[in-house]
Amino acid sequence: MIKAEIISIGSEILRGQITDTNANFIAKKLVELGIDLEHISAVSDNPESLLSTLKLALQRSDLIITTGGLGPTEDDITYQTIAQTLNLKLKKYPEAEKNLKRILKKINKTISPSNLKQIYLPEGVKIIINQHGTAPAMILEKDNKIVCSFPGVPHEMKNLIEENLIPYLKEKFPPSIIKKSKILKITGLGESSVNELIRDYINKQTNFSFGIYANPEDIQVQVTTQAPTEKEVEKLLQSSVNQLTKILDNYVYGSNEETIEEVVGNLLKTKKLKIAVAESCTGGMMGEMITRIPGSSEYFQGGVISYNVRVKENLLKVPSEVIKKYGEVSRQVAKLMAEGAQRCCHSDIGISITGIAGPGGATKKKKVGLVYMALADGKKTINQKHQLFGNRQLIRLRSARRALNMLRIYLTEK
Amino acid sequence: MIKAEIISIGSEILRGQITDTNANFIAKKLVELGIDLEHISAVSDNPESLLSTLKLALQRSDLIITTGGLGPTEDDITYQTIAQTLNLKLKKYPEAEKNLKRILKKINKTISPSNLKQIYLPEGVKIIINQHGTAPAMILEKDNKIVCSFPGVPHEMKNLIEENLIPYLKEKFPPSIIKKSKILKITGLGESSVNELIRDYINKQTNFSFGIYANPEDIQVQVTTQAPTEKEVEKLLQSSVNQLTKILDNYVYGSNEETIEEVVGNLLKTKKLKIAVAESCTGGMMGEMITRIPGSSEYFQGGVISYNVRVKENLLKVPSEVIKKYGEVSRQVAKLMAEGAQRCCHSDIGISITGIAGPGGATKKKKVGLVYMALADGKKTINQKHQLFGNRQLIRLRSARRALNMLRIYLTEK
Repeated sequence: MIKAEIISIGSEILRGQITDTNANFIAKKLVELGIDLEHISAVSDNPESLLSTLKLALQRSDLIITTGGLGPTEDDITYQTIAQTLNLKLKKYPEAEKNLKRILKKINKTISPSNLKQIYLPEGVKIIINQHGTAPAMILEKDNKIVCSFPGVPHEMKNLIEENLIPYLKEKFPPSIIKKSKILKITGLGESSVNELIRDYINKQTNFSFGIYANPEDIQVQVTTQAPTEKEVEKLLQSSVNQLTKILDNYVYGSNEETIEEVVGNLLKTKKLKIAVAESCTGGMMGEMITRIPGSSEYFQGGVISYNVRVKENLLKVPSEVIKKYGEVSRQVAKLMAEGAQRCCHSDIGISITGIAGPGGATKKKKVGLVYMALADGKKTINQKHQLFGNRQLIRLRSARRALNMLRIYLTEK
Repeated sequence: MIKAEIISIGSEILRGQITDTNANFIAKKLVELGIDLEHISAVSDNPESLLSTLKLALQRSDLIITTGGLGPTEDDITYQTIAQTLNLKLKKYPEAEKNLKRILKKINKTISPSNLKQIYLPEGVKIIINQHGTAPAMILEKDNKIVCSFPGVPHEMKNLIEENLIPYLKEKFPPSIIKKSKILKITGLGESSVNELIRDYINKQTNFSFGIYANPEDIQVQVTTQAPTEKEVEKLLQSSVNQLTKILDNYVYGSNEETIEEVVGNLLKTKKLKIAVAESCTGGMMGEMITRIPGSSEYFQGGVISYNVRVKENLLKVPSEVIKKYGEVSRQVAKLMAEGAQRCCHSDIGISITGIAGPGGATKKKKVGLVYMALADGKKTINQKHQLFGNRQLIRLRSARRALNMLRIYLTEK
């Protein structure tokens, strides 16, 4: 199995001026091709650093993909340094010169001496003409190693890799074995609880590898496996996913790229139900999440952001006596908020959130992170109380997600 | 001068599941400290890869900062591997145990065997207790090298680095020359317009370097300069910022870490004014942004998410004839929404947004990206019409930011 390595070249990455998002794009592509990526490095435009990084990469990897350092300025040194590392000469490529002239003409610029630099590449490469910019890319095979270079400008890099590198790699390394992953998305459980629950199962498996990742929003379990055919991989993956879903039960809300708002939206569409929200500490976050989904107008009526007590009273019709007696952050008020939203927005379901997101607002009995939520469907009202952890924004995010998850469970059980 | 290196640990980076944004944060901090960063590497959770990466880093760098791999699961191997690389034993740290118990108690969980792993660190380290999570961080000095490890969870890593690593490095390596940057945040102008406006000024400067960066939300102009003392740097920076602010006028809404919702919040507090929102296509996004600011209850009353036409009619009292005549996305409806929000939430100001975020919903006359917004103060109502660019989420984000900027300009001119 070949080992791949990505090198991102550019002092702007090391100075913190830009985040290297190119490596992430390429990493995803390599996963799809079943190619193992063991290293990602970022180096400055310093020739010595680049030289030593390239030498090391040639020792430990078979396929080296560089991005950046192909521009017209002095500090763009990728091709010179690759030539030096591999003992190759630089050569002028006429097809690159032609493209350079075409592009400069398009933007009404004449060729400058610094531009000319961009048409010299190491000898013997497969040159890749860049339709969207002046820097050509290349693929170079030497001594059983492959070195390829792409521009650092994300959209140029992406186009050139999609159209040239991917087909090249597919042909060069027809996957003898197909490797695929599936991600299970979990909410309402912490990383260590997920780990405890599935550890026994994981330890018994030999055909799969597993990863558990904690995000601010959820926990993800990734299952990876391989087999000679697509069909077998899918079958294997599905069997493991089914097992895991059985163990993790209703904590699993979706898979792969699915989001909780998407899952909830699909359930509402299928069941032809409409919802409305009443949000205090989240200030509109749940509504914002729901409306990220195109077509959410089919099931989302709207709602009330009842940040101030008067809005709770006037729009949601929560009686001021109840608020005085139990406080704005209470089970009773959450219940009446949900019922109020359901009524005033003419929806089937109303969901509410009221809590203390902090840093201020806590009392002796009610701590930062205390959140009440409720779901009213016109017949009954469900309540939840949570003591959440994190800073203000995380408590808000977790509240909105918990409330959407309460809705999801209500809809799946209904 | 010492050489620094960042190692980001986690298979999720190499599998393309997440973009490594931690390295960017640390790189920025090192620039501020005048410390040279030559390498950033990302490695998988594979023990051999991590071991060889650490060994190489110890050869070529003086200061090694790792993030990630400190969690409770089997594939979190940072501390074991650092101990192995440096021939150190792992030791139980009671202060880490105490913090672990405190955090688990807070979220009503008992200690599990996998959690216990997190309290073993290499012997002889300066342990850093993590107030926001179960993984402790550390700084380790050995043989003239410094190795420090921080969690991969961004907000935990940021807090721990700000509060512990930065002060430590400042004391250990007092900078001989001080280099600082300031960022001006601009909204309502494109990157090339900003460039045109300030180009003449920039070209005349010799003591400063400038960068113009385009984000989905705004344009940022970064000014960088250096001098032997903090005071001189500040003075130089301020003079340039003043010049730029003069040129860019009311398009500048803030500087450095300031956000538009923070700037608007401060203006509302100073002027003792209360606002309410009425949101259609943004679905609660503007309310969510406003309530990110702790203490926003002082000036934010709440509002109505009027996604469905019935919510516009019932809660905001927009007459159905007006909606029928002009359509939900119209200047007239935006005006009545803002006035409705101001009235029904008992606020001084009401702001509204109604638009077509897409991909569906466009008509021959009203294209995706058409957004109307209004601001009502009980006496007069201001209107704006925008034709915005981007996908659904970008159009929504830009709408919310434009509306907040309309409020900002209203408040500064008032």
